[in-house]
Amino acid sequence: MKKYAPADALTSPRFCGVASFMRLPQVRTTDDVDVAILGIPFDTATTYRVGSRFAPNEIRGSSRLLRPFNPAQEIEIFDFCSVVDYGDVDVVPGFIEKSYSMIAETMQPILDAGVIPIAMGGDHSITLGELRAAGCKHGKLALIQFDSHCDTWEEYFGEKFNHGTFSRRAVEEGLILPENSIQVGVRGPLYSSTDLDSARELGFEVITEREMAAAGIESVISKIAKRVKDRPVFLTFDIDFVDPAYAPGTGTPEVGGPTSREALELVRGLTGLNLVGFDLVEVIPQYDKGQITCLLAANIIYEFLSLVAKNKSRAK
Amino acid sequence: MKKYAPADALTSPRFCGVASFMRLPQVRTTDDVDVAILGIPFDTATTYRVGSRFAPNEIRGSSRLLRPFNPAQEIEIFDFCSVVDYGDVDVVPGFIEKSYSMIAETMQPILDAGVIPIAMGGDHSITLGELRAAGCKHGKLALIQFDSHCDTWEEYFGEKFNHGTFSRRAVEEGLILPENSIQVGVRGPLYSSTDLDSARELGFEVITEREMAAAGIESVISKIAKRVKDRPVFLTFDIDFVDPAYAPGTGTPEVGGPTSREALELVRGLTGLNLVGFDLVEVIPQYDKGQITCLLAANIIYEFLSLVAKNKSRAK
Amino acid sequence: MKKYAPADALTSPRFCGVASFMRLPQVRTTDDVDVAILGIPFDTATTYRVGSRFAPNEIRGSSRLLRPFNPAQEIEIFDFCSVVDYGDVDVVPGFIEKSYSMIAETMQPILDAGVIPIAMGGDHSITLGELRAAGCKHGKLALIQFDSHCDTWEEYFGEKFNHGTFSRRAVEEGLILPENSIQVGVRGPLYSSTDLDSARELGFEVITEREMAAAGIESVISKIAKRVKDRPVFLTFDIDFVDPAYAPGTGTPEVGGPTSREALELVRGLTGLNLVGFDLVEVIPQYDKGQITCLLAANIIYEFLSLVAKNKSRAK
Amino acid sequence: MKKYAPADALTSPRFCGVASFMRLPQVRTTDDVDVAILGIPFDTATTYRVGSRFAPNEIRGSSRLLRPFNPAQEIEIFDFCSVVDYGDVDVVPGFIEKSYSMIAETMQPILDAGVIPIAMGGDHSITLGELRAAGCKHGKLALIQFDSHCDTWEEYFGEKFNHGTFSRRAVEEGLILPENSIQVGVRGPLYSSTDLDSARELGFEVITEREMAAAGIESVISKIAKRVKDRPVFLTFDIDFVDPAYAPGTGTPEVGGPTSREALELVRGLTGLNLVGFDLVEVIPQYDKGQITCLLAANIIYEFLSLVAKNKSRAK
Amino acid sequence: MKKYAPADALTSPRFCGVASFMRLPQVRTTDDVDVAILGIPFDTATTYRVGSRFAPNEIRGSSRLLRPFNPAQEIEIFDFCSVVDYGDVDVVPGFIEKSYSMIAETMQPILDAGVIPIAMGGDHSITLGELRAAGCKHGKLALIQFDSHCDTWEEYFGEKFNHGTFSRRAVEEGLILPENSIQVGVRGPLYSSTDLDSARELGFEVITEREMAAAGIESVISKIAKRVKDRPVFLTFDIDFVDPAYAPGTGTPEVGGPTSREALELVRGLTGLNLVGFDLVEVIPQYDKGQITCLLAANIIYEFLSLVAKNKSRAK
Amino acid sequence: MKKYAPADALTSPRFCGVASFMRLPQVRTTDDVDVAILGIPFDTATTYRVGSRFAPNEIRGSSRLLRPFNPAQEIEIFDFCSVVDYGDVDVVPGFIEKSYSMIAETMQPILDAGVIPIAMGGDHSITLGELRAAGCKHGKLALIQFDSHCDTWEEYFGEKFNHGTFSRRAVEEGLILPENSIQVGVRGPLYSSTDLDSARELGFEVITEREMAAAGIESVISKIAKRVKDRPVFLTFDIDFVDPAYAPGTGTPEVGGPTSREALELVRGLTGLNLVGFDLVEVIPQYDKGQITCLLAANIIYEFLSLVAKNKSRAK
Repeated sequence: MKKYAPADALTSPRFCGVASFMRLPQVRTTDDVDVAILGIPFDTATTYRVGSRFAPNEIRGSSRLLRPFNPAQEIEIFDFCSVVDYGDVDVVPGFIEKSYSMIAETMQPILDAGVIPIAMGGDHSITLGELRAAGCKHGKLALIQFDSHCDTWEEYFGEKFNHGTFSRRAVEEGLILPENSIQVGVRGPLYSSTDLDSARELGFEVITEREMAAAGIESVISKIAKRVKDRPVFLTFDIDFVDPAYAPGTGTPEVGGPTSREALELVRGLTGLNLVGFDLVEVIPQYDKGQITCLLAANIIYEFLSLVAKNKSRAK
Repeated sequence: MKKYAPADALTSPRFCGVASFMRLPQVRTTDDVDVAILGIPFDTATTYRVGSRFAPNEIRGSSRLLRPFNPAQEIEIFDFCSVVDYGDVDVVPGFIEKSYSMIAETMQPILDAGVIPIAMGGDHSITLGELRAAGCKHGKLALIQFDSHCDTWEEYFGEKFNHGTFSRRAVEEGLILPENSIQVGVRGPLYSSTDLDSARELGFEVITEREMAAAGIESVISKIAKRVKDRPVFLTFDIDFVDPAYAPGTGTPEVGGPTSREALELVRGLTGLNLVGFDLVEVIPQYDKGQITCLLAANIIYEFLSLVAKNKSRAK
Repeated sequence: MKKYAPADALTSPRFCGVASFMRLPQVRTTDDVDVAILGIPFDTATTYRVGSRFAPNEIRGSSRLLRPFNPAQEIEIFDFCSVVDYGDVDVVPGFIEKSYSMIAETMQPILDAGVIPIAMGGDHSITLGELRAAGCKHGKLALIQFDSHCDTWEEYFGEKFNHGTFSRRAVEEGLILPENSIQVGVRGPLYSSTDLDSARELGFEVITEREMAAAGIESVISKIAKRVKDRPVFLTFDIDFVDPAYAPGTGTPEVGGPTSREALELVRGLTGLNLVGFDLVEVIPQYDKGQITCLLAANIIYEFLSLVAKNKSRAK
Repeated sequence: MKKYAPADALTSPRFCGVASFMRLPQVRTTDDVDVAILGIPFDTATTYRVGSRFAPNEIRGSSRLLRPFNPAQEIEIFDFCSVVDYGDVDVVPGFIEKSYSMIAETMQPILDAGVIPIAMGGDHSITLGELRAAGCKHGKLALIQFDSHCDTWEEYFGEKFNHGTFSRRAVEEGLILPENSIQVGVRGPLYSSTDLDSARELGFEVITEREMAAAGIESVISKIAKRVKDRPVFLTFDIDFVDPAYAPGTGTPEVGGPTSREALELVRGLTGLNLVGFDLVEVIPQYDKGQITCLLAANIIYEFLSLVAKNKSRAK
Repeated sequence: MKKYAPADALTSPRFCGVASFMRLPQVRTTDDVDVAILGIPFDTATTYRVGSRFAPNEIRGSSRLLRPFNPAQEIEIFDFCSVVDYGDVDVVPGFIEKSYSMIAETMQPILDAGVIPIAMGGDHSITLGELRAAGCKHGKLALIQFDSHCDTWEEYFGEKFNHGTFSRRAVEEGLILPENSIQVGVRGPLYSSTDLDSARELGFEVITEREMAAAGIESVISKIAKRVKDRPVFLTFDIDFVDPAYAPGTGTPEVGGPTSREALELVRGLTGLNLVGFDLVEVIPQYDKGQITCLLAANIIYEFLSLVAKNKSRAK
Repeated sequence: MKKYAPADALTSPRFCGVASFMRLPQVRTTDDVDVAILGIPFDTATTYRVGSRFAPNEIRGSSRLLRPFNPAQEIEIFDFCSVVDYGDVDVVPGFIEKSYSMIAETMQPILDAGVIPIAMGGDHSITLGELRAAGCKHGKLALIQFDSHCDTWEEYFGEKFNHGTFSRRAVEEGLILPENSIQVGVRGPLYSSTDLDSARELGFEVITEREMAAAGIESVISKIAKRVKDRPVFLTFDIDFVDPAYAPGTGTPEVGGPTSREALELVRGLTGLNLVGFDLVEVIPQYDKGQITCLLAANIIYEFLSLVAKNKSRAK
């Protein structure tokens, strides 16, 4: 196979060349493509820090350190997947509805072609746009959300669309199946005692960080699998899921979170699910240091890719 | 006089206490007040970098280094001015029209009370909101704009309101008198050969940075005075007017600009004008270093205050 | 109740307004107040890095991310506590005795009014000043000290008062009851084999980081409770208790320490103790990255607040 | 014309898309191309700081702020030039001779096709590799070198090839015509009183920074024109030519240098020369702040492009 | 004993004086010396980031926080060891073979005098140079390598000597006994499924990070001891062994790694082995934050020193 | 001559070895020494930022870029001067009187031996300590002070000794001859209209930055020479003399200042004066960027050295 695969770092140094994700071909095509990695640099729906518009390219930069064989999954990714860097959605900063249109417009051909999209945000509001697009293709989706926040608030400043309300909107718009959806890693101070309840009332299963710490990674993986069943699944990973020591470059960090090792193991555990779309959101490079947040983000996307490759390898 | 004046740094160290501007009283009143300093942390109308929402408080932090006597103007500011830190406008990030309403709502009582507002942005889109408010009080205004860009583009991404279009909108909305308005410091690459022409066609006098460098500061000051005459004047200072060596913390920096010394001298030269409002915009602290941008911003606001004090001292 | 409570972040963005702690009212009063949060920006008694004078305001900035309901403790803090940002003590940099006087002078009215003080340092030398003030109100106190150092050295450079000697001085001055006091988290290289012994000879129970790692958080919590009994307790938290990966912004960091999660769980475990005063010291923002140290500090203070609220709720 | 031109920033935000230089097409072709911009990320021939391997991509990032019309030169660049981002040379870090081979191999087809190369270093050692390649096409070249150092040392640590010896080697290898070559901006401490003499003995005209400051920019431009005459010229710009306040991100900074405005004016003055190749070297992003060095570098390359466009426009 | 020992931090502040390691005497002698700490600032054999040439002095700076008694090992280091800061090897940047010669030349007299060297890199390529030198003294060595990479690649860019090939070369050159050598902590994406196999085929025992996490620190320590037996051992510690949250300042970071606490415990567990040489490599201070990487590096070297002191104390 | 001179950077790379000033021998001797460079890392007498305790070593680090021949002065420094890095004064942080004693104790032998001291601060309070020591040797001194502040305030926070009062104290203690002393570069907001007057009333000539800008560098040099006459002169250079764009790393920066080029030319102009002591103060590396402040500081000290060498060369 190996239609589209990365440049070889043993002959061309990893710092050479314009930095696409993993130094993959930059081609805006769906022909002979299994996975399209794309940036969605929309970041003006945040409530505190802002700046994830620069995340896709910084994650691309850090992704050059990745190598094609994943020993934790024992998979040669590009033996099973043809992957391209599809470029970015031309969002409209400061205008969320127009940006949602641009997301839909860009993603629909990808989805229609049966290509799996992996998006790099942008803030968490973009996931609603992605779910709308994915819904047209796949119908109602199960949602796996790794996040320190439920993002099920009703509104912020009288506005319904922003990074703190996307999962409530997704339920309301009928894009996801709450009974097959799960939020993992929630922690930190809340606005009210009802915040967690209201996520649960929407139908989500919520596993808080403290519950996760008590139950262990393996147990959480089982719960996720049991929850999503064989539904088509969208996996959204907010980088603030991990502790800020591991991911300082984010917008609304919450202390007391999991390590990068725990995050990787969680994602690795999701083999065998019917994963149809992914995103990684809320990286803000301006607050990063030594690029550790961007590198972690790149590795999580790498694990997304590996999950797809695993699925493809089994399908063979 | 001295109704509202800063804390005394010879008895209370400048790093002590919650940082209001110059450690002035934080009072949301217009009684016995001549000048109200307020933050307008709206920043989602930018086309490149973003993050000036954090500027007002960072400028406040740096302003603690300021002292009350301005030797360049030979004025004890607080002998002639009662000044408060009025707090911030509660903007709505990602929603410019709503934010314009909030700006108007907050500023109208200030203006109505005859208090002179000095706003700390935020991106340059806020100036339109301020001009709308000031227009209700003063009618059409002369505009002095220190800036490396004209901000007279028609639109960005199909949208009419953002930080690159505010001065065109101000003319179109009849808020300013272009024949008494002037833009100083324009430089850098443009979208087209017509960019400068179209600012001039709108009626602005435009002095480019190269013209300024050739003519000298004194000459520019004369041209400004000649232009604005005795009109009520709004002075807007985009920090990208100065070279990025002096102000790295900004959103669309243009190299090859003036020094901080030149900027200060220009503002100091504006004595005797009928100044009715001010703002300082486009500081993005995340890109600053050693707080030099914020400190310069604080000093420019200090010169604004000094101009008001000079006017008050003459009025006596 | 809710006499003094934070601004509502769902209507006013958290980045708006001059940054007091949690955006609480800045009022220097004890009327209708349960807890007074105050800064003590004295930092010239350090032996290595310096600069915590800027910590109170940076912690205030990060505290804006906090929300009023603590799910880990299941408490709506401001249903039970009226809290103000009391401002800062006007310390005298470079003069420790004068600064101790200023601390006493500022804190005595707080303590006398039965208000619980939570101080933000400043370096660890300030705790002696606080204990002197608290002693006047409460008599001898139990001390809980989370710290990677005992701070029981005899002197530094021939001087008796600095951040490495405060707990020895507190014993010598009869301010604390060593038999009810405990130091947790001590680790790292020492000057001599007798360093730990001398802390124990002073009467402290000392739980080293390695002992804590072996025993587990629950066990440490029990030991603390058993130690302090029902004495009035002062809780001092040196941010270098946690590993520098979680708190790089500090003066004498020690590698190999606990995580932020462990730190939070420890503080959360202290419910039911007779806590009469708190401080959080040794944050140096200049060495922080992405504000993670300041955010952790704000969260620890938030847990202090929650402990007070729990006590108040039980008292009802 | 306009075969290859940048994306339109008025419809697609400048932060969108993988960052090529000015968001130009990334095409490794010489067909219908006038100028090829390429990275040469070789940096292991430095004597002090190191890391310019990351410069080409960081300069590309900052170049997104550039717009196509240059008002200082009154030229619509892409009306006269078709420009591509050619990608990078696959250098071999730590092996200078092999890297020189890779430079030659990559550049020869560009030069042979009559395309003008603009290279982004990398350290100053790469210029020798470029001159070797250009020499095959154009014969002996005049060299214009903006630099705070002559780079005519005999050797460093017993080695002949590194960033401090390139211009001596270029003379010795007969690649340049010293009698038509000139070095501008030299300043700072030297190893010996003979350092400047030996550059002059090699045949270079040397204008020190102090001589330049005394003579003025216009005069220096005249001297350059008089020196290079109508020879084919290679222009090499070491970013340490400007003062470190304007370009902190470099390897061997020398204080007391010119401003960015002076640097731009100098380059703009070189219209009408027979310019056949360019490079911009010694940017080290790790030491940059707020990206001001990278932005200045991008602007200098923009002026290179403008010079080519001016030549093309006259040729029409 | 105490021939050479650090300055006393209780009388001379730790920030005073030119920063040698732990403020030890800077003496280039082997007389009355047990351990020589030396810098080997060679860093041009890296494949991605570069800049560890500045690591030795930055580690020296951070090492000033260390104190002479190690409570975890219960050892007064300088009661048993005379230690000097021997200065640096004069490497030749960009020329690896010449640098290897300089390493040999500098280290041979140290080794010949029976002094134990502890080297501060520099990138991992230097270890080959050190092993060559140590081999002349001790014959074939056991190697303990803490590292997230095996460094057994065949070559990079057609070159055999660099930081990713050193341990393969060491086997090929007969410098180490693979059957007594062990690599611990390997993780992250690989070039191919055979990467790990080929390390094992060379004869190394490889314990991956995931195996280590499963087995526990104690178990790993046993395996190491069992592996190296009573052979003379060289211990090389690549700082990328730990997670980038704990050590951001490195060249090819791998997320999902151990904590600093785990790293320290591992090294502490190596008591009783016949340790004849050490190094700590791949610290790049430019990517560090709050100096936490350098501080961890200094602490690991401190544990090396403690191991030597333990051996000496037993020998008494 | 050349008794003590720097290591040769053409054979030993400048980044090698523990970083003494210019890589000079670290010898605490006055035998065969003309100039002793020493650090005085006392910084707890500041009124705003703090941290210059780390300046001496950071300046040493940057000084490694210096080379021995000064072309601006046409002098081979080490042909005429034997120079050592004398190490640091063991100051007592937080205790100014004791630190003054330590300064005197350390400097007296230097001065008594006829060696010229060049001190690296530390904050500006140290100059009083140095003047006390120098006074014992030379009697009353002329003082040349390059500074943006007069430092003639009466007291801060009720204390007489700190970095804002040193020059007033120096007059009061009879250490300097105000009629031969001069302050250059004063600018920025003041506490009162009398601040400048009171410096003049003490007897100082004060040339403000604006006066300097109007008069030109040459004129200022003449005024200085006319003022100090043939008196023994102490030259103190506060790095905040230059604009913060050139020296962000300082404690109380004042915008609108001179460039690094102007600063260097001023110092270079002081040939022929009877210079008996020097210091460079108020560098705070934590606020620096790309080390430009430290590099400028190193260059200014280099110009001090050159002045001494010029005097020595004439004496021959």
